[in-house]
Amino acid sequence: MTEWTAPGALMRREIAEQPDRWLDLLADRRAVDEAGRFTAELRAAGRLTGLVFAARGSSDHASIYGQYLAQWLLGVPAAMATPSMATVYGRHVHDPKSCLVAVSQSGASPDLLATVESARTSGSPTIAFTNDPDSPLARAADLHVPLAAGPERSVAATKTYTAELLALHLWLRAAAGEPSSLVDEEIFALAERGREVVRRSAELAPGLAERLVGAERAVLIGRAFGAATAREGALKLMETSSIAASGWSAADVKHGPLAAVTPGTPVFCFLGERAGRESVEALLPGLRARRADVTVVGVDAARPGLAGILPADVPDALLPVLSIVPLQSLALELSVRKGFDPDRPEGLTKVTHTT
Amino acid sequence: MTEWTAPGALMRREIAEQPDRWLDLLADRRAVDEAGRFTAELRAAGRLTGLVFAARGSSDHASIYGQYLAQWLLGVPAAMATPSMATVYGRHVHDPKSCLVAVSQSGASPDLLATVESARTSGSPTIAFTNDPDSPLARAADLHVPLAAGPERSVAATKTYTAELLALHLWLRAAAGEPSSLVDEEIFALAERGREVVRRSAELAPGLAERLVGAERAVLIGRAFGAATAREGALKLMETSSIAASGWSAADVKHGPLAAVTPGTPVFCFLGERAGRESVEALLPGLRARRADVTVVGVDAARPGLAGILPADVPDALLPVLSIVPLQSLALELSVRKGFDPDRPEGLTKVTHTT
Repeated sequence: MTEWTAPGALMRREIAEQPDRWLDLLADRRAVDEAGRFTAELRAAGRLTGLVFAARGSSDHASIYGQYLAQWLLGVPAAMATPSMATVYGRHVHDPKSCLVAVSQSGASPDLLATVESARTSGSPTIAFTNDPDSPLARAADLHVPLAAGPERSVAATKTYTAELLALHLWLRAAAGEPSSLVDEEIFALAERGREVVRRSAELAPGLAERLVGAERAVLIGRAFGAATAREGALKLMETSSIAASGWSAADVKHGPLAAVTPGTPVFCFLGERAGRESVEALLPGLRARRADVTVVGVDAARPGLAGILPADVPDALLPVLSIVPLQSLALELSVRKGFDPDRPEGLTKVTHTT
Repeated sequence: MTEWTAPGALMRREIAEQPDRWLDLLADRRAVDEAGRFTAELRAAGRLTGLVFAARGSSDHASIYGQYLAQWLLGVPAAMATPSMATVYGRHVHDPKSCLVAVSQSGASPDLLATVESARTSGSPTIAFTNDPDSPLARAADLHVPLAAGPERSVAATKTYTAELLALHLWLRAAAGEPSSLVDEEIFALAERGREVVRRSAELAPGLAERLVGAERAVLIGRAFGAATAREGALKLMETSSIAASGWSAADVKHGPLAAVTPGTPVFCFLGERAGRESVEALLPGLRARRADVTVVGVDAARPGLAGILPADVPDALLPVLSIVPLQSLALELSVRKGFDPDRPEGLTKVTHTT
């Protein structure tokens, strides 16, 4: 890339275009429907005892969402792979009745490719979700679902993350046998709501960034689906703004992370989803007692700022597509204020070559 | 507990006694051998297509070790459970041919109990590893393996963590059909080596703590087995010393965590195990270019300090029992220097009541 762009211009554009890219995913349903049929047939034939996701970074967080959604919708166990079994130990540990699902923006990570090949060696069916239909991962898997997000030029993943969430969502709803017309209605509404969340996030982020510009650390907390958002939000703050941020399931916060909340530590609590909300809420008194700088990201329209930024009428299972957006905008604004360029963060490469 | 103790006295004693507690585990092998036979029989009958671990906090890190070791020794997939499927969503998602392994010091966490009960509802065999044979978890599972660590009175888990590693190790070696006499020989040698690691750690920790006392953040990096050590070491620094520490698999470091390494950031690289070592080593030039304060924890006897603290003749699969010890000592010394009491860290309770 040789053209000159203002710091964060690419990331800003890619955050803003997300709702359009979600509609692009709907525009060509062939791959996602085929993957849905494939999975439904395995399940109907008693040949789907589980799903295993293989991913790194943001795609790993999208896979946490996929893991919860798969278990909820299909009632089969879903887990995360350990790619080093294949790459470090040379062991093929796959149940042939378990479907290996690789999720990767680039589709080029060698360790994910090795994991897909290892699963195939064991006779497991494989599906890849990538943004590049010509990538090694797309070619190696039995089925490929394109993310249809268009080229992502900022190094920090934004639109490919929400495209991954949505592609996994469409696939799993199809696998559960839900009619695509019903699902499509929900996604059209989601994109509408998404435009509003994008607009409000862009409005609120500069003020929030101003408040957080001196922060050394941050803690983000969600539960179940929201734990994926907490982890992805922390990664955005880390990679764009060099903040020592960490994202947690509310269930793990009392095991250590709470002790890292010092007076003034910014803490983001994701309270959008109904399921699991009370376990995040239960932490609020303790966080306030530690004098944390608590920001709630939620659906309470009566409250100002991020506490009311999420629409109350979006189903739990789609809310993660929206709840990450305010953190994307915040990460962008913080990065620019700190004199970094979030389009070219130090130390981050788009394709990770782990071997 | 009403007796007065100097800050950290309990933690110091519990770190020091670890090698003796490992030998206690060997002294009564009945439960671990029974669990090994049970698992071997399931496997021989084709009724073990996987293992699923359920745990929180330090026990979750011990389970990461168990996950790798199980896959390596038994060649079956092993994964981490999502307890919120049972507690938040009320879904029972267990493959009846998968064995649910709950690991918990107290054996009293309600969400782990709910996960064991959910697995039993699905017809899955269950094994619990706890330090309390009378705990609800011990009673709920088909089999119980006691950790034999004695009462842990410091709030920061040390001896129960290494007891969990070792109990999982003994169980999995038995499940793999290895003769206990051979394994016991290795553990006797491990305890001998352990005494030396405990002694050297206690010697080196005060100087290291002096150097790190002003650190806001820390990053810990390992691979495979070493990733468990990195996560557990980070938790110790968080809970005892309020440091914004995070532990990573080397495979994930380029996805964000590297950007959180600012000049002077303490970074611990675990280089003990042969398998995966090169993927940690490959990060060293980048870390040094970012002017990180890198400490290698390794087996290079020619080098001073922690770089040579680990014995070179201990097998990879037992090294995590030793490699956490220097971090336990460092966490203790840092905590005391910062004016905290690691035996009673703020915000941490011994039994976590997640619902």
